[in-house]
Amino acid sequence: MTPDQFRDAGRQTIDWIARYLEEIERYPVLARVAPGEIRRRLAERPPDQGQPFEAILRDLDDVILPGITHWQSPNFFAYFPANASPAAVLGDLVSAGLGVQGMLWATSPACTELETHVLDWLVDMLGLPARFKSSGSGGGVIQDTASSASLCALLAARERATGFRTNDAGVDRVLTAYTSTQAHSSLEKAAGVAGVGRRNVRLIDVDAAQAMRPDALERAIAEDRRAGRTPFFVCATVGTTSSTAIDPVPAIAEICRRESVWLHVDAAHAGSAALCPELRWIHAGVEHADSYCFNPHKWMLTNFDCDCFYVADRGGLIATFSVTPEYLRNPATESGAVFDYRDWHVPLGRRFRALKLWFVIRHYGVEGLRAHIRRHVGLAQEFAGWVAADDRFELAAPVPLNLVCFRHVAGDETNQRLLDDLNASGRLYLTHTRLGGRLVLRLAIGGTYTERRHVETAWQLIRKQA
Amino acid sequence: MTPDQFRDAGRQTIDWIARYLEEIERYPVLARVAPGEIRRRLAERPPDQGQPFEAILRDLDDVILPGITHWQSPNFFAYFPANASPAAVLGDLVSAGLGVQGMLWATSPACTELETHVLDWLVDMLGLPARFKSSGSGGGVIQDTASSASLCALLAARERATGFRTNDAGVDRVLTAYTSTQAHSSLEKAAGVAGVGRRNVRLIDVDAAQAMRPDALERAIAEDRRAGRTPFFVCATVGTTSSTAIDPVPAIAEICRRESVWLHVDAAHAGSAALCPELRWIHAGVEHADSYCFNPHKWMLTNFDCDCFYVADRGGLIATFSVTPEYLRNPATESGAVFDYRDWHVPLGRRFRALKLWFVIRHYGVEGLRAHIRRHVGLAQEFAGWVAADDRFELAAPVPLNLVCFRHVAGDETNQRLLDDLNASGRLYLTHTRLGGRLVLRLAIGGTYTERRHVETAWQLIRKQA
Repeated sequence: MTPDQFRDAGRQTIDWIARYLEEIERYPVLARVAPGEIRRRLAERPPDQGQPFEAILRDLDDVILPGITHWQSPNFFAYFPANASPAAVLGDLVSAGLGVQGMLWATSPACTELETHVLDWLVDMLGLPARFKSSGSGGGVIQDTASSASLCALLAARERATGFRTNDAGVDRVLTAYTSTQAHSSLEKAAGVAGVGRRNVRLIDVDAAQAMRPDALERAIAEDRRAGRTPFFVCATVGTTSSTAIDPVPAIAEICRRESVWLHVDAAHAGSAALCPELRWIHAGVEHADSYCFNPHKWMLTNFDCDCFYVADRGGLIATFSVTPEYLRNPATESGAVFDYRDWHVPLGRRFRALKLWFVIRHYGVEGLRAHIRRHVGLAQEFAGWVAADDRFELAAPVPLNLVCFRHVAGDETNQRLLDDLNASGRLYLTHTRLGGRLVLRLAIGGTYTERRHVETAWQLIRKQA
Repeated sequence: MTPDQFRDAGRQTIDWIARYLEEIERYPVLARVAPGEIRRRLAERPPDQGQPFEAILRDLDDVILPGITHWQSPNFFAYFPANASPAAVLGDLVSAGLGVQGMLWATSPACTELETHVLDWLVDMLGLPARFKSSGSGGGVIQDTASSASLCALLAARERATGFRTNDAGVDRVLTAYTSTQAHSSLEKAAGVAGVGRRNVRLIDVDAAQAMRPDALERAIAEDRRAGRTPFFVCATVGTTSSTAIDPVPAIAEICRRESVWLHVDAAHAGSAALCPELRWIHAGVEHADSYCFNPHKWMLTNFDCDCFYVADRGGLIATFSVTPEYLRNPATESGAVFDYRDWHVPLGRRFRALKLWFVIRHYGVEGLRAHIRRHVGLAQEFAGWVAADDRFELAAPVPLNLVCFRHVAGDETNQRLLDDLNASGRLYLTHTRLGGRLVLRLAIGGTYTERRHVETAWQLIRKQA
């Protein structure tokens, strides 16, 4: 493909995406295919000779779209959003076009420096503590997901707690980690990966608002200490996956300080809310955290993957991951004057993901991003009001931000049927969770294109179906 | 940004990339900036209000390009290639435009099924064993990098060796892993991450061709067994990073079988060569491997990230990673009829990366991809001939594929100066390694746009500089 053919094929592709976004509300939000149905539409064997670009684009409509669950639909209210935006898509396109590797500063200095710079911007934009900035002893790095960020935090904590010996010698004692019963499953996964063991993750009780109970945390740590185990890591959640519950980070941080235990704060979804000064209360206590992450790929208009992971002591993180074989040695690295981001996570190679963040922040401006957050939070509060005013429904958890957990008062079976029928209608997509043992419907409002009318229609559909 | 504004901004972005590719040879291949120089060009604070798209694109030229090392330049001969292509870039663009999450089959069935399908295609395209196909008990999954694939393989091996108890209970014995002194540093990194310990990775001696010595492997395993340790994992390399040495996989596999040790084959760079039947000898013995990976993002015209990771027993891999909280439960998962790829690696969320592979394979066809590989291998053989024919230079390792390791006979100092001067010229970019204690220049030929004239010019520059 010559550059001119690329221009032509590129325009067709851009047009295809624009048309997809224009028509997105026509598709059933949740894909309606059975297992194996998409594969049966695909050619059994790869072609020997190249095919026309037009034929490939046509198959997007004929073969791929029927198997797509439309995450960018304004009627997608499931899980947490993954709200991309045109600016992010084009920033990512430039990254693909440049095709550089950012494993070392030297392999493309702009890739590293823009990342450091934009992640420092975000510290200010979210009102995060200065200790997470690169100008001091901390710093930020883009990870693919909050699961990977949790793993990195847990590993750095494991090393700090064992005098940086485990990495070299292997796990040689029982290390215990703590998070709430409502925390994300990535914590257990990380403990398994790190050789700490899933059973050594204590799932701490929550209060009526689904937030971690500091007294229960304190008792669990004490019990492990008495038994000769080594408490090393606490993960507090700002905005749990089930219900956006917010753990009491100030009290948890005080315990971590006293016990010399690493504190990681996972704000994967909720963190973006702190763009708005009036919502920064969610980050109370984060100034005492050893690490923190939030995902612009969830609620800051930046397409996946983009998790921003911060540490207060980058030296400890780097010491956890650094290995330098001869073929990666270079003067810039040896000068110590640069960051080599390959030492901040598991993968070696890395894309130029800071570009899409830079495009998003510049295209929308801080005020533009705040407007999106405020719209989503406002709509969720309004929806919660509608639920509260309808006798057939009840709110199942507080609604601090943009997720409404609610249920029909008639019990689990009714809620399950309601959920299945709504999703089968194709007109919206909700998911569920369990709170206090009971089935709960979740409506998360965070779509780039979600307006009041979509939320209103969703509520009408829910009431009608009920 | 409305869909029409996206059309307009998208065309500008496509044009920007096309022009970049047209003009790429004008830029110095290796960026010429000092640490901090790019950051100083960036706005100190993020903008409050959104900025025009044109201003952002303009800054790509003014601020970003000076800090780019041009991996897509036909004069880039450093590291291993990361050879993107227009078809891949556009496939990735569609993925960004759709913005779906492929963590579960249910969250976008096409994302999972196209991935399974294309990875099955690749088994046939590379002549890999049928045990890696999804139709049997194996299967393939896209990982970000070979580092992550190594980690996944090592973890699945750790679990198999300990009856799937370590994940739950933590590391409770000394587990030992084996790879050659020439293997990629990701192995040591993975052993640290997994709690096995870097010191429990035995770096096995190599022969004169830099390939692992099976007799030394056998002795190391026996010694560890005698000392009461648990050998659990061997990583053989097909195409080492330093010199594309190819470990004797058949002999290694026989030892692994006898010792009941997991065999992972890392063909990150070289694997793509097997697209050509005449080069499939590189995969001798892979039919006995428990896992295997290669990176289309290195040498198969697919932009980063895209590592294809295969296992013979997907059940063991899934058992290593699976955690299912309530909010991810769904009927398709519970039916057992689908793959949920989040259980095949560390991250939960995942992009629709199979699209770019599908675009590449269909756009070029198998024959088109083979033509690229053959061109690169042919050019490298030719270059090796020129080196061998010049008294001032010598080949430093065999040249099985597209990497030439060579040096000036005058010794390390001369080679270092030669390397520095060549890279400072901006006209090409080489990197180095050490083989047998001596500094060696590496010239890797794999650029999408690298033609004979670029390699000829490189050789002229090298001779002139010498």
